[in-house]
Amino acid sequence: MKLNFLYANMQKDIDLVEKELKKALSGAAAETTSDTALHLLEAGGKRIRPMFVCLSARLSPDADFGAVKNASVAIELIHMASIVHDDVVDDADLRRGRETIKSKWGNHIAMYTGDFLFAKSLEYMTEIKDVAAHKMLSHVTVELSTGEIEQLKDKYNFDQSVRNYLRRIKRKTALLIAASCGLGGIVSGQSEADYQKLYRFGYYVGMAFQITDDVLDFVGSEKELGKPAGEDLRQGNVTLPVFFAMEDPFLKKRICQVTEETPAEEIAALVEEVKKSGAKKAEDIATAYLKKAVGMLDSLPQVPELKPLKQIVRVLDKRNY
Amino acid sequence: MKLNFLYANMQKDIDLVEKELKKALSGAAAETTSDTALHLLEAGGKRIRPMFVCLSARLSPDADFGAVKNASVAIELIHMASIVHDDVVDDADLRRGRETIKSKWGNHIAMYTGDFLFAKSLEYMTEIKDVAAHKMLSHVTVELSTGEIEQLKDKYNFDQSVRNYLRRIKRKTALLIAASCGLGGIVSGQSEADYQKLYRFGYYVGMAFQITDDVLDFVGSEKELGKPAGEDLRQGNVTLPVFFAMEDPFLKKRICQVTEETPAEEIAALVEEVKKSGAKKAEDIATAYLKKAVGMLDSLPQVPELKPLKQIVRVLDKRNY
Repeated sequence: MKLNFLYANMQKDIDLVEKELKKALSGAAAETTSDTALHLLEAGGKRIRPMFVCLSARLSPDADFGAVKNASVAIELIHMASIVHDDVVDDADLRRGRETIKSKWGNHIAMYTGDFLFAKSLEYMTEIKDVAAHKMLSHVTVELSTGEIEQLKDKYNFDQSVRNYLRRIKRKTALLIAASCGLGGIVSGQSEADYQKLYRFGYYVGMAFQITDDVLDFVGSEKELGKPAGEDLRQGNVTLPVFFAMEDPFLKKRICQVTEETPAEEIAALVEEVKKSGAKKAEDIATAYLKKAVGMLDSLPQVPELKPLKQIVRVLDKRNY
Repeated sequence: MKLNFLYANMQKDIDLVEKELKKALSGAAAETTSDTALHLLEAGGKRIRPMFVCLSARLSPDADFGAVKNASVAIELIHMASIVHDDVVDDADLRRGRETIKSKWGNHIAMYTGDFLFAKSLEYMTEIKDVAAHKMLSHVTVELSTGEIEQLKDKYNFDQSVRNYLRRIKRKTALLIAASCGLGGIVSGQSEADYQKLYRFGYYVGMAFQITDDVLDFVGSEKELGKPAGEDLRQGNVTLPVFFAMEDPFLKKRICQVTEETPAEEIAALVEEVKKSGAKKAEDIATAYLKKAVGMLDSLPQVPELKPLKQIVRVLDKRNY
């Protein structure tokens, strides 16, 4: 995502969040815990969720950055925990060009490191005074783990509904971005009506973000993706472009035969078919979500600080990696 | 542990906690999540941690059972989450005579189910108003996951110190029991001085509990243990009786050669040696912890409701399974 323009505007905030993340993880009582967690931290990341917390908080003139920072760290640690566990399940050896924890230390250490990151995020949540923030975070965390289990269960299930897909990406991706925006609103003292709108905004953006990501898996080049196109399909993750492609019964028949053993040539051929028949329609759905996101922003007090959030929507709409 | 006398006294409370646990897990949005989590719940368990929460809360005349129940459920869900992940690491197929989640659904589902249980516990924590409770719970949760990683790292490391062992069991076992007692004190409105004493009490009891468990692994019969004696040693968990046994340099040499491949006969022979040379000394340490636990109870207001906590200490002191 071409979000560099945002970082220029808020590098200082993100740097402070990064520093706090490092402090949180360096302070681990056990050496191994620090090693593994810092290894992941140093692999970097776009820190998109902290960015949403900070940008949402900025809409309020009363924002206390200490609280904003704690919320950002809590959210990013939840995200990191889920990444570490996902890498175990996906048997992923690389993330952002760096060896994954599971690859370097094994599945068991990776599992416990995820637990540690999640526990650590609790410590930061504890610092947030607002009960509404706790309720929001605990809710999306339950949904996140539910979505992870569902994703496993739904693998290679080509008979599931689009609704099922949408619910899954809501849980896996959109709600944590929703909570990032909502939390930014809460900790900066915005009204319930406003932080709920920010939550909705984040939800719509998150849905668009994940759908766009799922489209990219088909339309991106291997160089852009860092992996061959069609990897989701090969792994049995049925995504929105695939649902549209399956409207053609002949294509559906071929897609339904995909297993882990399907040869790369067949996957590549299917990628071309899905590109033609499903990508555009999926992109349209992403755009529809982004329109709803803009609608939410339009319903908020029109302060100049809304601009970066509006820019994010525009950039996502043209996202091509 | 022969704690039946306690349950007779508080069956109603524990039944209500059990009902709430069932409600928490049945309400899972995804079918699989409910299936796996309820499977674990239905395997039963002694609910020792909820019992400590309830007994500690009873010391206060003002205890509101709703808050006590929420705290009990939050703690038990953390414990259940850690059990599910431990079963993955230990490659355990049975727990309390029932197939483990990892055995029935595989490691990946087990990992995410643990995450779900932990997230669910967050929802219950959120219901607890007191910030002190949140701080206590987040602290012990971080320590718990740290202890789990340490335990992995320390496997087959026969050169570690006793201090290392004590710190590990503190993290893995004692602190969650400490938090159970401390939380019972907090949610029932006891003074900070008193709930800190309850926390210390739980810590001492937890240390004694784990040491006794570690001794039992050597002195218990296969029938009592449900597995051959010496299983900890075979798995490379260096426990207190082993440290004492290693004071004999000849025995130390033999123990240091233990690996996963050590034949059952050699383990059985070592079990006999450790029984003779290390078990009694380890039991003495457990008794010393229990004395400290009694000291804590003696320093609390001497209400009749202290009696069951005192009984627990007496039962633990004679524990032979």
